[in-house]
Formats: sequence, C-alpha cells, structure tokens
Amino acid sequence: MLVVRGNREFLLEPGATQETDLGVLELPEDIEPGTTVETHLDESFEVRRLRGPDLFDHLERTGAPMMPRDIGLVVGHTGVAAGDRALDAGTGTGVLAAYLGRLGVEVTTYERDPEFAEVARENMETAGVADNVTVETGDIAATIDDLKGPFDLITLDTGDAPEVVAQADDLLASGGFIATYSPFVETARACAEAAREAGLDDVETLETIQREMDFDDRGSRPSTAGVGHTGYLTFARFLPSLE
Amino acid sequence: MLVVRGNREFLLEPGATQETDLGVLELPEDIEPGTTVETHLDESFEVRRLRGPDLFDHLERTGAPMMPRDIGLVVGHTGVAAGDRALDAGTGTGVLAAYLGRLGVEVTTYERDPEFAEVARENMETAGVADNVTVETGDIAATIDDLKGPFDLITLDTGDAPEVVAQADDLLASGGFIATYSPFVETARACAEAAREAGLDDVETLETIQREMDFDDRGSRPSTAGVGHTGYLTFARFLPSLE
Amino acid sequence: MLVVRGNREFLLEPGATQETDLGVLELPEDIEPGTTVETHLDESFEVRRLRGPDLFDHLERTGAPMMPRDIGLVVGHTGVAAGDRALDAGTGTGVLAAYLGRLGVEVTTYERDPEFAEVARENMETAGVADNVTVETGDIAATIDDLKGPFDLITLDTGDAPEVVAQADDLLASGGFIATYSPFVETARACAEAAREAGLDDVETLETIQREMDFDDRGSRPSTAGVGHTGYLTFARFLPSLE
Amino acid sequence: MLVVRGNREFLLEPGATQETDLGVLELPEDIEPGTTVETHLDESFEVRRLRGPDLFDHLERTGAPMMPRDIGLVVGHTGVAAGDRALDAGTGTGVLAAYLGRLGVEVTTYERDPEFAEVARENMETAGVADNVTVETGDIAATIDDLKGPFDLITLDTGDAPEVVAQADDLLASGGFIATYSPFVETARACAEAAREAGLDDVETLETIQREMDFDDRGSRPSTAGVGHTGYLTFARFLPSLE
Repeated sequence: MLVVRGNREFLLEPGATQETDLGVLELPEDIEPGTTVETHLDESFEVRRLRGPDLFDHLERTGAPMMPRDIGLVVGHTGVAAGDRALDAGTGTGVLAAYLGRLGVEVTTYERDPEFAEVARENMETAGVADNVTVETGDIAATIDDLKGPFDLITLDTGDAPEVVAQADDLLASGGFIATYSPFVETARACAEAAREAGLDDVETLETIQREMDFDDRGSRPSTAGVGHTGYLTFARFLPSLE
Repeated sequence: MLVVRGNREFLLEPGATQETDLGVLELPEDIEPGTTVETHLDESFEVRRLRGPDLFDHLERTGAPMMPRDIGLVVGHTGVAAGDRALDAGTGTGVLAAYLGRLGVEVTTYERDPEFAEVARENMETAGVADNVTVETGDIAATIDDLKGPFDLITLDTGDAPEVVAQADDLLASGGFIATYSPFVETARACAEAAREAGLDDVETLETIQREMDFDDRGSRPSTAGVGHTGYLTFARFLPSLE
Repeated sequence: MLVVRGNREFLLEPGATQETDLGVLELPEDIEPGTTVETHLDESFEVRRLRGPDLFDHLERTGAPMMPRDIGLVVGHTGVAAGDRALDAGTGTGVLAAYLGRLGVEVTTYERDPEFAEVARENMETAGVADNVTVETGDIAATIDDLKGPFDLITLDTGDAPEVVAQADDLLASGGFIATYSPFVETARACAEAAREAGLDDVETLETIQREMDFDDRGSRPSTAGVGHTGYLTFARFLPSLE
Repeated sequence: MLVVRGNREFLLEPGATQETDLGVLELPEDIEPGTTVETHLDESFEVRRLRGPDLFDHLERTGAPMMPRDIGLVVGHTGVAAGDRALDAGTGTGVLAAYLGRLGVEVTTYERDPEFAEVARENMETAGVADNVTVETGDIAATIDDLKGPFDLITLDTGDAPEVVAQADDLLASGGFIATYSPFVETARACAEAAREAGLDDVETLETIQREMDFDDRGSRPSTAGVGHTGYLTFARFLPSLE
C-alpha cells in the first residue's frame, strides 16, 4: 500500500510500522485502499493501492527502465492476457516484468547480472507480483534448450536478442508473439531478420514518437520541449500453418 | 478456439461442429490449444487460443475500433491491472473493453446505441470475456449519479467525454486514472481542461506517431507509406491529498 | 565579412578596423573571402563570407527568430525565386526577410514595433541585404489598401494573419503564394479558413517534426534529446481560373 | 510562361504557338505574366510565370524527384544564396538544380546516365535556368580532381556520396556546406562519418516528418492519411580554423 500525505509517500505492507515527522504510522493488517490512517499524533495519511506508474518511483533502479508507453505498446500489439505465460530477458529494474505480472501473466525473466537479479527479485516483492514473476539469474541464450515452453509471449531487451529470436519458434505457443526492444536500428533490423529466418510471421519493427500537447490561453500546440526516441519495438508472431 | 488451416480460420467453441470444404470438423470438448484436429475426411486443422490481435478479425464491427497501439498506451500509462475495476463509455465494437477484460479487469461499459450494445455483448462472448465485461445500454452522462464507484480506470471515447471527466473525481479510486480518446484537438483540450477543473492531477494529452521500418537489401529506413493520426489520448489521475 | 580565429569571430565591413587580443585587424577594402588577414602583431585570421546560418549568431534579436527549417520549408513549398517580390509581416529579428533577400527576392516587411523595426533595419545592413529588403514600421492590416502588388509571396508571422490572408487575393500575383507561420493550431486553422474563404487554392497546413540521428559505436538511432514543435505553416496559392 | 484555363495548362515560350480545343493560341513576344491571351476563337487563357512547384508538373521525370520540403530544408540549413556556386551530383530530373538555379545560384550538376543528363538539360531550359545550371554527363567521383572550386554548397544524391564527402574539404569555400540526401540510414551514417573524418564541422543527420492538418466541422487533427519518409539529410560545414 502507498501511504501518502502531501509530498510524503511510503510504500508499506499491511501490518508495517513507519516513523514519520508527523508521528509513528502503524498500518493495520486489514487496511483497505481508499481509507485513511492516523499516526500516534493523530495526523492522517491516505492509503492507496500501488499502481503501475508508481513502480517508476518505488522500484530500485539498476538501469533505465522501459517506459510506460513501450510497455503498453507491447501489451497492445501482442494482446498478452491474464493467464498467459511470458518469457522475458534483460530484466533490469523489472518494470516490464512487474507490469506483466500485474496483468495476471505468469512471467519468467532472465537477468545476467546476479546483483541486478537480486534487486529485481526485491522489486517484484515490492510490486506485489512475486507470486507470478520468477527472476532467474543467467543468460537466456545459454539455457534456451532447458526452457519449458510453450510461451505466449517472449520479450527481449538484450544485446543478443537476435540469437534468441532465431530459436523462438521452439519456445512459442501457436499464435504467440515475440517483442524485442532496442534503441538501435541495427539491432532492430537483426531481430527482424532473425524472425523472418526463423519462419515467424507478421514481422514488423515500429518506431513510436510521442508528444505532449500544450494547451494555454494563446492556443493549442505540441510541446516545444520535444520527446526523444526511446527504442524500436520489433514484433513477430508464430503462426505454424498446415497446408 | 481458433481452428486454422492456411487461409481458413474458424472461431469455434469446444464441442462445436463446423462444415468446411475439407470435411466436417467436430471440436472435442476437451480440446487444447496447440494441438491439431481432423475433419471427417482426415484433414488436419491447427487449434489456437484466440489472442488480442485476433479480435480485430473476429469481432463484428459497429465502427472503427480503437487500434492496438492506443489500447496499449492506455494500459501502459495508467498501469491498470488484473482485478481492477474499469468504467468505459463509447463501447463501439468493444475492442478496448475486450482487451481490458482479457487482462483480468472488471469492466462496465456504456453504449448509447441499443443495436451496437447488443453486438458488443455478442463480441464479449466471442472474446471470452462475458464474465468480466458488462455492456450497459445507455448514456453514461445520464446515469453517472447511479454508478457505484470507485473505479480504478475510466476510459472515454465519446463526444461528451469532457462532461464525464468533470465528475470523475466522484467515481475514481484514490490514485485512479481517466483516459479519454479523441481524434480532435478541440475535444482533447476540453477533456484536459475539464480534468484540471475537476482537480485531477498529472493531466496530459499525448499524441503518438508510429512508423514501421523497412529493411531491405538497399538499407534501413522508415516506411514511405506513412502511418496516419489516430487520436489524442488525455490522461489524468485522481490524487486526493491531505495537507 | 566574417573574420575568424578559433572562438574569435568578428563581422566586419571591408575597410573596417577591429581591436582584438591578438592585435589590431585592418580589413583591406579589397579583401576576398577565403583568404587570411594579419593583425599588426602578425597573427592570422580567416576571412569568410557571411552565410545564412551565421545570421542566427550575428543579428540582434528582438524575439525568437524563425528557424532555418521553417524558412527552408517556406522556400521549398512556394518556390520563391530570385527577382520575385515578397511581402512579409511580423519582421521581428528579420531572419526570414534576410534569407529571402539573400536569395535575390525583393522584400517589403512590416514590423509594428518601431524599436524592433529599427533593429531589423540594422540587421538587414548586417546581413548585406539592405538594398532589397525594406523594413516598414507599421501594421500591415492597416495599410493593406495602399500596398502595391502584385506580390509573388506573402509571408505572415503575426497574430492578425487571418485578416491579411482574407485580402491576399488582391495582393498576390497569379500563381503566387501565401505562407503563414503560427505555433498554435487555432491560428493555423483560422488562416486556412480565411484562405479558403478568399478563394485561394491548394490550402494546406503542415506540421513538421525534425529529429537528429545519433550515430555511435553501439548503433544508429534518432536522438533521445527530442526536437520540439516550432510552428504550423499554412500555405495557399492564388490560382485565378477562367472557365 | 504557363498558359492556363481550367484544367488546360501549357508551358510556352513567348512567341510560341499552341493548338488547343478552344482554338489556336499565339503567345506574343512581349507577353507579361498576370495578363490574359485569346485564341483565334476569342477564348481567354491566363498567363502565369512558371514557379518552383510547377516544375513538378512540367519537368520530364527520369526518377523520383527530390520533394519541395527536402529542397527547402537544404536551402534553409545551408543558407545558400544568390551568387553562390553549387556543385550537385545525381541530377536526376533536376528539380533541386532547377530550384537552386531559380534562386540565383550558379550550379554545376553531374548526371552519370547520358540520356538522363540530356533530359535534365532540356528540363533546365524548361525551368528557365539554363544560363546558370550546367548539366555535366559523368561521374563526379571520377572527375573530382578536375573540379574548380571553391563551392559554397555541395549537394549529393548518389550512392557514392560518402566518397565525395571524404574529399569535400578540397572543394568547399570556407564556411561552405555539404548536404547529402539518402533514403537509408546506412548511407546517411556513412556520409556523416566521412564528413567527420574529412574534418568537416557541424555534422548532423536530420530526419523530417511532415504531416498535413485536417480542419473540418468536427475539429482539427493531423491527417489520418500519413506522410511517409522521404530521406535523411546529412549536413556538414567546412570551417577551417587557425589556432
């Protein structure tokens, strides 16, 4: 639960105790979001459920997390659903894995760096998705033969993504998707080519530009601030076909 | 289940019977996706689970459905999760409602046109989300006082969206989001202004440009085909704050 | 002429004298660009012709000047040519007028603010286009009846642009263009509507997004820095037609 | 001169004769643009000066010509001016050369294909710029040592552009620019790298997305039609510096 007052924002488990400058907070075990809780000095805090965008403030970062828009585009383009199984590599901070977990997807995610993997595990606890997101320490390409498919979705944010894509047809459920993320044209192209060579269908690489609109008394316009490039998303689908 | 062979693609319930030019298909009650099934002429078809992107082929359309990218952006920016409650208006074909339902969200969606609402109800059956998506016939603005919140997400794709946004603070859970979709600057602006006047936070209107990359022997480049505008998404969040 | 050494850059007329920390520079009357000149301490400086992009460093600013890309788009879309007559309003710093002047266009430009107009006149001297750019102090809408057309191009960067567009058909040569610049959708729309009502043809409002590419050892990608919105350009053409 | 009536549009020299379905047109030697002329059946035609955008309709095409926006961006970013000398390669239809010629630039342009070069020469006549645009048949890279610089601008739309860029410092005037155009990331990157290796400054590769706005009774929005990619423009400047 998020326990909030003005700029103070704490992420607490029910039953937890937190010292604040407005007194000690004891969060009841049966606390409900949308209520308030008082400190021992009778100062009130609001209690909120943690939501996806809050993850960006409350997860420990081990690198630049994937942005909400790119996470959303993966969900939108692949139609991943609750109950699906996803295989993820390049966990990093784990925001993508946590989002998927919060959508009811069973996620296995690989992080090569043991320390990052440990942070990601803690982040999954924080995000409340430890039950359906498993963080594995290791290199997905090295263990690919041991993976037990089929997966409905494979998401890759690693340098060796093309190598994994090349074997994706062994891992994907019929109709399942891969989605790879890369800032660079060259990697995106290598992923698209690997997907075509692996016989996947509907291969496409998408680049997304997003701008905020400014509305003021003078008029309406796209922001002059500009929104920069994040990455290319390459999608492909496994559609084995009988003839 | 999707039952597929080459260009033939049927959407069938387990237990259903379908005549094809390759013989009669009887789909067993206990059929599993990822297997094959034979017609009475021993011709094989693949059996696949219906996925989000398949909805665009298999739902009956009563208007232009929201595109996967925009649905995804709503999911990404609001972080809606399985178990959340969503209120939707302007059901139309119902693709957004179906996507949300497939993500484990409990959705109540309003469609003004009774015939469209009936089609949307059938579409929810087709999408397998009739259990957690309720299609109401009617005008959300007219019934807003009777709605039982709180909702974690309110999504609006209607002409009177600004009117509903103005009352969103009565309907939203703490930390919940509204997301409105409109092709037009003027409506997007009216939604953003209504959100600010209603005291919502983090108000932003986003415009998204998406391009496909072409990779061929000559080189890599954005597609010359161009991808057009779909709509502006306006987001706002209900963050009641104690001081 | 620009007289340059490292970070030192002086804009001097032939015959001028400039004190520098490396000694006194006397620029000969017959100096040629592409040569060097020495100070009285025998320190060398390069002599270059002033070019369009240098105007952004050497003109005195009275407001945000139009960007090179927008100036270029006006030239490209209207095909204005040496020897053409242009009418400009909203001179500001005068960069657009100076660019047009440097392309051999005869420009009359209106600036409402007398002090800005005076600065713009000096800027035209600096840019070497005082002979073919006339800066008028005043309001173009107020003096529109006295203007002696026809003009091949009318460029407007003023709040009352729609009012001037409405009378453009009286001022334009057959086949001539208007080009209006505005940061805001509403003004762009008003200009487009005024152009249509005035019977102009080929009315279009264009928005341009420009991004720089980053090329490094890791790969190629659009810049993460983002390039913001500048303005909408609305074009229309006067094509009187006999039937 | 363009001689126009409704959909009929003829490009005629003063003194020329043209048969039309409305009678024979004889264009007087002293004809002025902005006037009308009658056929022998007393049917009127309007007389207009040929302008830049008209070149796209009246030049014979030997390939896809560079678009007005890209031509404009070259002019805007390089600030090329009347009286400058430009070296161009990859003439093609010659629209860029003709635009530059119409801006009072002295252009030498290389076209490898002799037939295309011949068409380009005729196109320069048509555009009225034969006096200041010289179309050379041949390969610029092969003749680069014979070229007599300095040039204020070098524009390249050829596959071997990087090779020419590598020697641009021998050809450019101090402060002069190169501008290369390519649809592909890889060529743009090679040009940028060649420019850096040649010691040129202000190297940048720009990608431009342009959209038309739709204004109708329902509201204002970017066009749903989309405008596709044309090409990457890579700019660099020769700024030899004394230290």
